[in-house]
Amino acid sequence: MNVFSTISGIRQYRWADHAAMWGLVPTMGYLHEGHLSLVRYAHQENDRVGVSIFVNPIQFNNPNDLTNYPRDLDRDLSILEQAGVDLVWTPSPDVVYPPNYQTFVEVEKVSKVLEGASRPSHFRGVTTVVAKLFNVFQPHRAYFGQKDAQQVVVIKQMIHDLNFNLELITCPTIRETDGLAMSSRNVRLSANARQQATCLYRALTAAKCAFDSGHKKAAELRATMLAIITQANLARIDYISVAHPETLAELEIIENQALLSLAVFIDDVRLIDNMIIGEPCS
Amino acid sequence: MNVFSTISGIRQYRWADHAAMWGLVPTMGYLHEGHLSLVRYAHQENDRVGVSIFVNPIQFNNPNDLTNYPRDLDRDLSILEQAGVDLVWTPSPDVVYPPNYQTFVEVEKVSKVLEGASRPSHFRGVTTVVAKLFNVFQPHRAYFGQKDAQQVVVIKQMIHDLNFNLELITCPTIRETDGLAMSSRNVRLSANARQQATCLYRALTAAKCAFDSGHKKAAELRATMLAIITQANLARIDYISVAHPETLAELEIIENQALLSLAVFIDDVRLIDNMIIGEPCS
Repeated sequence: MNVFSTISGIRQYRWADHAAMWGLVPTMGYLHEGHLSLVRYAHQENDRVGVSIFVNPIQFNNPNDLTNYPRDLDRDLSILEQAGVDLVWTPSPDVVYPPNYQTFVEVEKVSKVLEGASRPSHFRGVTTVVAKLFNVFQPHRAYFGQKDAQQVVVIKQMIHDLNFNLELITCPTIRETDGLAMSSRNVRLSANARQQATCLYRALTAAKCAFDSGHKKAAELRATMLAIITQANLARIDYISVAHPETLAELEIIENQALLSLAVFIDDVRLIDNMIIGEPCS
Repeated sequence: MNVFSTISGIRQYRWADHAAMWGLVPTMGYLHEGHLSLVRYAHQENDRVGVSIFVNPIQFNNPNDLTNYPRDLDRDLSILEQAGVDLVWTPSPDVVYPPNYQTFVEVEKVSKVLEGASRPSHFRGVTTVVAKLFNVFQPHRAYFGQKDAQQVVVIKQMIHDLNFNLELITCPTIRETDGLAMSSRNVRLSANARQQATCLYRALTAAKCAFDSGHKKAAELRATMLAIITQANLARIDYISVAHPETLAELEIIENQALLSLAVFIDDVRLIDNMIIGEPCS
């Protein structure tokens, strides 16, 4: 496995074989089974797999969240080596944002709601760093988890609008056995909070169940989710959403598909989860 | 010569030979000797040359300027064919900015002064469309004229910050025999205005001459340029600048190099010109 902190190191290895197809898995490290599933999908479809490990400061609106974000580079590298990854980029912040850095990529509409409403400038940080990752690795495919549903929507819009010559592959959310979506932030949950954290998945499942049994009104599904979350006494709701899966506009009636999504603080740890319900319109 | 309006057409031809080195010359059409010099430089350094012809609506802050921008696609294509260009992209606005378009690239500091102060959102339009052109053509080198000095500075900053894997080549300003910098907008000058339009080049030359004979104070050079421009009774000054060639900060004393630049309305036609003076610091 080839590990570089510099851009020139990545480029040299990336272009050693011009004909190879590359898959890229961007991460912020502290890897879990969710990241590894992305690596496995990338291996299936490409000749080579690159991974970036970079806790991107400009996508954190809360400095405490950035400081507390868990890190363990040695463990990450050993996991990636075992997973057969070819190339890893582990840049320091000043390689990604050198002195006098001043360029930003902004997706204006779909980045303003949900996570974007709660975390101003978050997606501007995400799209800027992802544009840079695309240019550093120049992959044929890039792999993102459905866990960050809005991130997928925003990055797809950026790829489409700026004509990046690559394909975004969305991979399913990986869950603990009790349904909690895997997240590097889960380690920050106390034992009690960890138990209550399953309320997000239970709320989504209950809303899906209601939808599948004929409830098409978004307000009913929001109420179903609200009732379950409020039973958890450590939970503080940021948002409960039933939205169009592409425009992210809140729905009244679900015609075809909808994106159910939640952001909930359990104690002081902010968790998100989501589920797509219904069939795509054909 | 292969001419396409679609992105897929460009990509298919661009990648027909993976090993070929590509040079890109982005233009807004109505081609003159300045554009052709860029094509010639591109031919010298690359196996293939691509040209884009697109009057980019989002970089015009003045709707009249957009409406009045001269266009002649048939003439442009015949000129490019004669110049031996391989690939031309002639997209319509809705190919470049399809419905629901919402992504923009912004260079924050160097795009705010000079042209950016006079034409808000101009460079945001430039950097967005140039990022798209880079992704559509994926060239090894891109050619821009020194005539648009700030545009070169802004795009270089974007390439550096977003890690575009290509080299920007700046080519010298091409001038009429009386010194007027070639510009597609020159056709809009009346006979009288055309004559007075040489005041920009005369002002720059006089300032350079003063600098070369020992005048290092920027204020003196600005005064030299001002005196010459104000002699032209059709001239209305937008800005007169003596700035650092990279940061574009206005200078007091010229230590090494300076960018002299001017924006002047002659009648109602806005003209720009510039000159770099001094030696780069070694």
